[in-house]
Amino acid sequence: MRNPLSKKIIDIQPSGIRKFFDVANEMEDAISLGVGEPDFDTPWRIREEGIFSLERGRTFYTSNAGLQDLRNEICRYLKRKIGVSYDPKKETLVTVGGSEAIDIGLRCMLDEGDEVLIPQPSYVSYLPCTLMADGVPVVIPLQYENEFKLTVEDLEKYTTPKTKVLVMPFPNNPTGSIMTKEDLEPVAEFVKEHDLFVISDEIYSELTYMGEHASIASLPGMRERTIVINGFSKGFAMTGWRLGYCCGPENIIEQMTKLHQYAIMCAPTTSQYAAAEGLRNCEDEVQEMRRSYNERRRFLMSEFKRMGLECFEPYGAFYVFPSIKEFGMSSEEFATRLLNEEKVAVVPGTAFGECGEGFLRISYAYSIEDLKEALGRVEHFIGRLRGQRK
Amino acid sequence: MRNPLSKKIIDIQPSGIRKFFDVANEMEDAISLGVGEPDFDTPWRIREEGIFSLERGRTFYTSNAGLQDLRNEICRYLKRKIGVSYDPKKETLVTVGGSEAIDIGLRCMLDEGDEVLIPQPSYVSYLPCTLMADGVPVVIPLQYENEFKLTVEDLEKYTTPKTKVLVMPFPNNPTGSIMTKEDLEPVAEFVKEHDLFVISDEIYSELTYMGEHASIASLPGMRERTIVINGFSKGFAMTGWRLGYCCGPENIIEQMTKLHQYAIMCAPTTSQYAAAEGLRNCEDEVQEMRRSYNERRRFLMSEFKRMGLECFEPYGAFYVFPSIKEFGMSSEEFATRLLNEEKVAVVPGTAFGECGEGFLRISYAYSIEDLKEALGRVEHFIGRLRGQRK
Repeated sequence: MRNPLSKKIIDIQPSGIRKFFDVANEMEDAISLGVGEPDFDTPWRIREEGIFSLERGRTFYTSNAGLQDLRNEICRYLKRKIGVSYDPKKETLVTVGGSEAIDIGLRCMLDEGDEVLIPQPSYVSYLPCTLMADGVPVVIPLQYENEFKLTVEDLEKYTTPKTKVLVMPFPNNPTGSIMTKEDLEPVAEFVKEHDLFVISDEIYSELTYMGEHASIASLPGMRERTIVINGFSKGFAMTGWRLGYCCGPENIIEQMTKLHQYAIMCAPTTSQYAAAEGLRNCEDEVQEMRRSYNERRRFLMSEFKRMGLECFEPYGAFYVFPSIKEFGMSSEEFATRLLNEEKVAVVPGTAFGECGEGFLRISYAYSIEDLKEALGRVEHFIGRLRGQRK
Repeated sequence: MRNPLSKKIIDIQPSGIRKFFDVANEMEDAISLGVGEPDFDTPWRIREEGIFSLERGRTFYTSNAGLQDLRNEICRYLKRKIGVSYDPKKETLVTVGGSEAIDIGLRCMLDEGDEVLIPQPSYVSYLPCTLMADGVPVVIPLQYENEFKLTVEDLEKYTTPKTKVLVMPFPNNPTGSIMTKEDLEPVAEFVKEHDLFVISDEIYSELTYMGEHASIASLPGMRERTIVINGFSKGFAMTGWRLGYCCGPENIIEQMTKLHQYAIMCAPTTSQYAAAEGLRNCEDEVQEMRRSYNERRRFLMSEFKRMGLECFEPYGAFYVFPSIKEFGMSSEEFATRLLNEEKVAVVPGTAFGECGEGFLRISYAYSIEDLKEALGRVEHFIGRLRGQRK
């Protein structure tokens, strides 16, 4: 029997994120600071709307692009939050999480050989989805010295005549880095000059801790070159509902809707009704979660400072990305030993790109109690490492 | 500004199914017999489980492949229904409807230029998903004379050294055709002889009206060459929940799970809890819906006979596929005039492939009252057409 598999899929590496949890899950007393998921249940008001829609028998397909009411709310929300107006009929598509939007966006934009600029460390999907769409991923290693922001110097180094798309992964998973309007301006100029398009993954936009989130789509001349991807998983604590969306120029959204119709049909109906309620009436709950994440973030940063663990201050998402270079071992080795010796699971920075070597991703979507206990163990571990070196 | 779109997506035709509903929706007193969706609400027991899971705060990601409990139930169900055993850990993937499974299955199996045999008339996704995966769709036009079943003679005509995958769309949408074990046997022999793989889309497997559904995966030597795709949309009346699954050889399911993880993450959590309950405790509800579809099917067939409208007897899904060749106009023209003159929406057979010319898809997922009213109008329309010809 011949090989049933395509060369493309075989060459793609599995994600390095989950490995440690599978081990941690089997381990008694292990604490995981690894998962990229809010620790809050979805706000009750949103769940109640989902329950109501099930009671009423709203169990049918919606239109392919999503409930019109939800698309209207999405456009109102984006206007309010990032100051960009989209047409809820023609420029808005409701997707299965932000993930589906990334995948179908790349599939609709790339021809074979088109290059996609992917700043790393960043979320694990951009590179495999580019490969599966016949594109050529070109990794831009971001620098600790720049707080892992993307600069025009980075872009100049990696842009070629074949470059078509730039992925903008801010607020960033795993570094927690954000880019302000001032940071984005020169990037936008570069994009226009080189006639590129941007896929801006703003799934963590609700979680910023220094001013409000800025979208590159809001800068002059960028709306027509940008697909804004966002969703409900992070800010609204709705991961399991699998609901995201994208907004962009009509010609791109039209094609993405066509592919979405064939490959997915429509996003889950219950989730759509619930999310519309979230956009209408849950600003307070979202802000309360943000406040809580910020408290944990500050706690972690002060503890790292006390322990002498080097870490730039991240202002977005719910991750910190400390350096472990002083210990002279790889991220993978550090994470493995930390799990085996102290039963704390974190993710090696290299799971998000080679340039994550020397760093760890630590999620603070955990209770202060868990964070305290875990940090105690980390302190113990690095104390031992430092002792051995002396 | 250059064109943001890929050549691949631009060349793909939009689906011809929805066009008529959009018009019908705006038209007062119109009756649609067009949508491919059960008219039943999801059984209450299943909705209740979804509600319960929301009340309990089960709003988080599941594992990428799906809740283990659901995968266990799926494997028990398939063992019971088609007599094939799958490993719930390694050979089972929970997807966003059957649609996602079709898409990622093709993406994991096709290299550029690989040919995919697609019997038509059939569901609209196979062809575009093949093109998006760089495959070459090779359409096999099925024959009315064979009750739209696939025969070895068909296969011989269209198989080449580049053929890799055969799509098996039975019970069939739009023709309602099924294939019995005896019909499948020679096809399976041909597949093994030519070292092909099968994507068997069995989403309508619960809806057969002559004996039990037979899966090609249950034939000797076929389990290792077949991906069985199924789901909850049709048999369990769960379209809006977006929940399907696929089972197959470990090496294929492993790669599909990898792609699913990057492109989708996991299927909706609420739907997974609810569907597990459906598999455990809703056999009666499913059989009751089947009984009701069958009653409507028989009503339609007897009415067609009375009107003298030619239609082979379909034993699956919830569609009939009458011939309108006697009227000397295209399916598109017939459907357009039927909608404009009698306010009844049906789908032209050509929406499911060129060989659907001369036929209409009529869904009987509607109440007997609606069917009666609609058929009265159809009778009126064809009476007028026949009168004009005289």
